[in-house]
Amino acid sequence: MKVSVLGAGGWGTNLAVLLHYNGHNVTLWEYKKSYAKELAKRRENKIYLPGIYIPDEIKITSDIEDSTFHKNLIVLAVPSQFLRKVVEKIDYHSIKDTILVSVSKGIEKETLMTMSQMIKDVHHRLDKNQIGVLSGPSHAEEVSKRVPTAVVAASVSKETSKTIQSVFINSYFRVYSSTDILGVELGGAFKNVIAIGAGIIDGAGFGDNTKAAIMTRGVAEISRLGLVMGARPETFAGLSGMGDLIVTCMSRHSRNRFVGEQIGKGKKLKEVLKSMEMVAEGVETTKSVNQLANKYKVETPIANEVYKILFEDKDPIKATNDLMNRDMKFE
Amino acid sequence: MKVSVLGAGGWGTNLAVLLHYNGHNVTLWEYKKSYAKELAKRRENKIYLPGIYIPDEIKITSDIEDSTFHKNLIVLAVPSQFLRKVVEKIDYHSIKDTILVSVSKGIEKETLMTMSQMIKDVHHRLDKNQIGVLSGPSHAEEVSKRVPTAVVAASVSKETSKTIQSVFINSYFRVYSSTDILGVELGGAFKNVIAIGAGIIDGAGFGDNTKAAIMTRGVAEISRLGLVMGARPETFAGLSGMGDLIVTCMSRHSRNRFVGEQIGKGKKLKEVLKSMEMVAEGVETTKSVNQLANKYKVETPIANEVYKILFEDKDPIKATNDLMNRDMKFE
Repeated sequence: MKVSVLGAGGWGTNLAVLLHYNGHNVTLWEYKKSYAKELAKRRENKIYLPGIYIPDEIKITSDIEDSTFHKNLIVLAVPSQFLRKVVEKIDYHSIKDTILVSVSKGIEKETLMTMSQMIKDVHHRLDKNQIGVLSGPSHAEEVSKRVPTAVVAASVSKETSKTIQSVFINSYFRVYSSTDILGVELGGAFKNVIAIGAGIIDGAGFGDNTKAAIMTRGVAEISRLGLVMGARPETFAGLSGMGDLIVTCMSRHSRNRFVGEQIGKGKKLKEVLKSMEMVAEGVETTKSVNQLANKYKVETPIANEVYKILFEDKDPIKATNDLMNRDMKFE
Repeated sequence: MKVSVLGAGGWGTNLAVLLHYNGHNVTLWEYKKSYAKELAKRRENKIYLPGIYIPDEIKITSDIEDSTFHKNLIVLAVPSQFLRKVVEKIDYHSIKDTILVSVSKGIEKETLMTMSQMIKDVHHRLDKNQIGVLSGPSHAEEVSKRVPTAVVAASVSKETSKTIQSVFINSYFRVYSSTDILGVELGGAFKNVIAIGAGIIDGAGFGDNTKAAIMTRGVAEISRLGLVMGARPETFAGLSGMGDLIVTCMSRHSRNRFVGEQIGKGKKLKEVLKSMEMVAEGVETTKSVNQLANKYKVETPIANEVYKILFEDKDPIKATNDLMNRDMKFE
């Protein structure tokens, strides 16, 4: 297949290498001309995926037309708040028969759209069957070292989700398929808010019991919100929800957990974000989750407290105590 | 309330101290006379919960009649394979108005009963409303240090589950309630098998992606089995299932994860078990899960591979590869 990956961050670069390994004809698009040139020359993504060789057969370019013209499948691996601008640059006629697969985990600010909804918003004429997502517990560094990994491909069309599955699957990258694209997208985005919460628990010096409770009750509350929005709650217990949250919370390298940990130790959000090279999707998503919870009138106590800690300087210890001392609840 | 805790292991001792802190009149029963005397004298459980003071007001005894006579609530904190023998020693007339709360996480060998089913099997005349369980992500060491913790109390009776909730809840120990006692018990037991699997992944040197996948897909398969057995699948995504699995897999001290890790490094099961002071419930439960999966004709690929690794010397790398290369699946 002729495939393209838009976005040469760690995950995009990794997927380009994986798709090449799977026998596809791969183009990798990077928006900065100079960095695209450097990547093409060095064959290594020093900033985002150091130590991994990018095979010569992968074409690296910053030309969007060239990267999107009559491909069978295009992977969108741009941070969610920048993705609309990239999708707008794509000529509809180039992609009228193409499958678009988003791997970005966020909710668009203000519109509160998922990435697949935003893609459809930009290109109305695209059929829903042409849009899919790929998500799950998958640190790029591990996938690039061929560590066994399992993810989920989703589309409203069963056939499309199976096509995406067959394009990505190999002996170390197991792909499940699902038709609950909304659940996969919401879970992948919302879980970053819970990951920030879990990071706060680490940073503030609580224990494993507390962290496991926040993670479990956190997934319960984002499932409730997802259900009201039209997703299937069991999707949130799957690879793209709980699975991805687990890997995020186990890792020292996760950006969202890292942000939480620094805040838990008493740093201010601005300082923390300034010190980071990459985007922590969960910071914006914390706002979105709270807006969506208000809109759909769903209780999300953990996401509320994360919001108050991040944006209203609430003390993490006070927030945790407030969570512990709510009314007695049914699980 | 007059409450008793049967079993002075780490968790039993911890709950006795917590119940005393909550204002109850507490008796702690230990089966070994000499150890009961030592506990009563030292006021510290050196073997199972070192460093924690056991207040003088807690009565420590090895007299089962004394510990069970007309109590309002009795906590059963004995390893699951020994619990029947203890329950058989209790005179029914002593407990005809008592609530019994099991905190043991196992399935009885051969009968394949949960602990609440076994209690009812021994004392037919007990009403189902008198039987409950308490379960969730709760390392004893952390609870004893008042680290914020959340667990779930369950009984078929909503009223009983609320009574148990009100007996245990305090500012650092948050108790949810549920009527899915079967789901809470099966999740608490089955999750130990997945924890052994996650330990094997650690020991064999796979990555966080692999571990998160095994945990998530593991909970999916035990939920499927639970559903067929009459439990609610969402219970397995809750505190007693996924929550408890998370805390087990994060901790270096978990016995089940430890067994898996040693096996993953190439040790034999017998050697590993010989080196341990405490019981790893998951080893027996691995047999039970596989028997139940056969009986109810449910696919449990991860539990199957854990069984083969533990009892048939299958190589963990081969087992993981076999899991990765099954047919392409729907999530």
